[in-house]
Amino acid sequence: MPHASSDDERPTPVAAPAAPPRRHVVVIGCGFGGLQCAKALRGTSVDVTVVDARDYHLFTPLLYQVASCLLNPSEIAAPIRKIFRGAPNVRYRQDEVVALDTDTQRVSLASGTVLEYDTCVVATGSVTTYYGIAAVEEHALGLKDLREALQLRNHVLERFEDASTADDAAARLRLLTFCIVGGGPTGVEYAGALAEFVRLVVPAEYPELSAGDVRIVLLEGGEWVLPTFAPKLSTYTERELTRMGVDVRTRTLVTAADADGVVLHDGTELPTATMVWTAGVRPNTPPGVPTDERAGRRMEVDDHFLVVGTTGTYAIGDAATGRGRHGEVLPMVSPVAMQAGRFVAGEILHGRGRRFRYRDKGTLATIGRTKAVGQVGRFTFTGFVGWVVWLGVHLWYLIGFENRLRVLMRWAWYYVRLDRPVRIVIRAGDRRR
Amino acid sequence: MPHASSDDERPTPVAAPAAPPRRHVVVIGCGFGGLQCAKALRGTSVDVTVVDARDYHLFTPLLYQVASCLLNPSEIAAPIRKIFRGAPNVRYRQDEVVALDTDTQRVSLASGTVLEYDTCVVATGSVTTYYGIAAVEEHALGLKDLREALQLRNHVLERFEDASTADDAAARLRLLTFCIVGGGPTGVEYAGALAEFVRLVVPAEYPELSAGDVRIVLLEGGEWVLPTFAPKLSTYTERELTRMGVDVRTRTLVTAADADGVVLHDGTELPTATMVWTAGVRPNTPPGVPTDERAGRRMEVDDHFLVVGTTGTYAIGDAATGRGRHGEVLPMVSPVAMQAGRFVAGEILHGRGRRFRYRDKGTLATIGRTKAVGQVGRFTFTGFVGWVVWLGVHLWYLIGFENRLRVLMRWAWYYVRLDRPVRIVIRAGDRRR
Repeated sequence: MPHASSDDERPTPVAAPAAPPRRHVVVIGCGFGGLQCAKALRGTSVDVTVVDARDYHLFTPLLYQVASCLLNPSEIAAPIRKIFRGAPNVRYRQDEVVALDTDTQRVSLASGTVLEYDTCVVATGSVTTYYGIAAVEEHALGLKDLREALQLRNHVLERFEDASTADDAAARLRLLTFCIVGGGPTGVEYAGALAEFVRLVVPAEYPELSAGDVRIVLLEGGEWVLPTFAPKLSTYTERELTRMGVDVRTRTLVTAADADGVVLHDGTELPTATMVWTAGVRPNTPPGVPTDERAGRRMEVDDHFLVVGTTGTYAIGDAATGRGRHGEVLPMVSPVAMQAGRFVAGEILHGRGRRFRYRDKGTLATIGRTKAVGQVGRFTFTGFVGWVVWLGVHLWYLIGFENRLRVLMRWAWYYVRLDRPVRIVIRAGDRRR
Repeated sequence: MPHASSDDERPTPVAAPAAPPRRHVVVIGCGFGGLQCAKALRGTSVDVTVVDARDYHLFTPLLYQVASCLLNPSEIAAPIRKIFRGAPNVRYRQDEVVALDTDTQRVSLASGTVLEYDTCVVATGSVTTYYGIAAVEEHALGLKDLREALQLRNHVLERFEDASTADDAAARLRLLTFCIVGGGPTGVEYAGALAEFVRLVVPAEYPELSAGDVRIVLLEGGEWVLPTFAPKLSTYTERELTRMGVDVRTRTLVTAADADGVVLHDGTELPTATMVWTAGVRPNTPPGVPTDERAGRRMEVDDHFLVVGTTGTYAIGDAATGRGRHGEVLPMVSPVAMQAGRFVAGEILHGRGRRFRYRDKGTLATIGRTKAVGQVGRFTFTGFVGWVVWLGVHLWYLIGFENRLRVLMRWAWYYVRLDRPVRIVIRAGDRRR
């Protein structure tokens, strides 16, 4: 057995017949890429160890709905052990990778354990980047994992409480100004969801406030919101968000921030108590691996996702520079990671054979309660049709039948009752020991 | 207007006709007692300010189901603002009381605001007590609010993860020994729920572990578990828990604790990484109010719940020594608080008239998936019948139609699928600023 640590194994029967040694595949990270890879290896002839500090796979496209009081955390998080229930060849290990040595083929974990591998799949994804602006990092709220989504939910609810007892108009305006930096899908979807939260909840439940006191400002550095979408979809989105009361400002960069607010590139000061940062991610590569400077420090891989210079280490998803059929670096989006995960599982099981061909299935973003934009190849959707497509796709890709059912019911409830059910401030501290 | 702070009010129309001044009622705490009182004052001729640091009413009887991965926090927490949606005379204020002056009739809040009142209802409930044993307090996990329930859930899930990679048998046994101190309803219900969690989840999802490695120890200082129930119900409960694999030890006290485990009164050391403390509560009275030494430091009130020596300050629920018709101090349970809350609202609206008569509606505790014990007057229930009664009562008293529906569905899912759906470790840190 190639496992370095035998303590997670049941004792082997003494008289076991000599079986050919099973290859040990370590999958680092159980996001979209790692999950698809490990699922494709389930029930096969290799032993799989999935390493992730979080004990769940997170459906990140719906994080903004947790942040905006619509979904519960558990509805978009599937326990990893539950996903691999009944798979005798897949083990889960809650740990963090502190070093990856592709020469000796060892993964060092924070707990001190060292895993030896025959094959490793690095699927560590990406984390928020603040482009080195320390003041922004200090004052920004992220929206990239469950902890951040809950922090944001708590923070926004508490700003409404603070505003409801604020002494003067300027303080109240600052507390009720919500600044969202980054006009990609996350920024657009959160801005739309927050605008609906304000419209549905504030008039009914905050008699001290008026919905007109609330300002939602969406800042995008480029020419358009949703810059990766077709121009007409960007225009549509901008118009719909504006109609919903969102102050959309394109060609606007944040250059500084402090406790009072943010400063824009033209020197404008925007007093705000809330800066949500969705303006960029960087690859989250394990310590000790070489990365590609020209491709945003993602790990350089060949066209079979093998890390350059190695024979048993793959890297997929946001952490690696996977390339399309014309040599273009593929975007840091979940379909790329999922397809690469399944492709690499095939490579591991059947050897180098096929060529990876990325199938662009299109992109979608929801704007409001019954509005979304989407494009699949040359086709674009807007409005209600886009929203129905968005709904179907998101339910389809959500892991777990129960989650699908529950999220669908919650959406149905919300669309009929116009309610935001999960608006409570909860804090779950760390364990005591 | 008797409100000290006018900033939470819309401007009064200039030519408003002179109305008689409205009395200002401050309700401190929105637990069972405070909520019932404020609801009974909704839409009446008094102005009500509900002060609570938490923005939700918590259905504490189901906390153990959040801790044991069955329910989401939002399913047992109703936002206070939502409860009082559309009630023009009820305002919510998220704040903490730092002082209560019953002579000048002022409530001082942590934010610096001082509320003047004509009538105050102290409904601040109770908090966990460790009877002054500092080492126990340091190492114990509580189960009295949402933060503690989530801490406990995270902690238990992480002990399973730790155990699945533990080096030696003794370390593993310690990690898999869960010690629950206190054999009242909370301790019994959590012990039963944890035993079912182990039975349902461990064999299927922790191939590194065996359900037989797990020890759940329930320690009760008195003669019986569920000491306030009829003796035959205690006996039944003890037998059923034992059948489910819980090691029930009565007449056993915890005298010390450290990082390695707990020490019992006879000197026995019980190595454990988890001590859940449900062994006692103490009244959570605001600073500056006189309390009754003989009645466990609850606030002394007359038979109309007026704090002794005051004319406008009431105290109800766990924080006060409400008395029954024979002068006996009423127990610290939710029906007492709810009935007192409604009674005091009547006193506020209609003056001193009726006599408070506590109606004991009985007590219930669930043991396992389809088993509960209960007593109503001279009648006792056990097993499936008890469980059906338990289910109906808990759904009935859960606040909010959607919560009832969702909890019922979750229970149905769980009973049919034998699943524990909410088993993810999440942490929600504090806001950044």
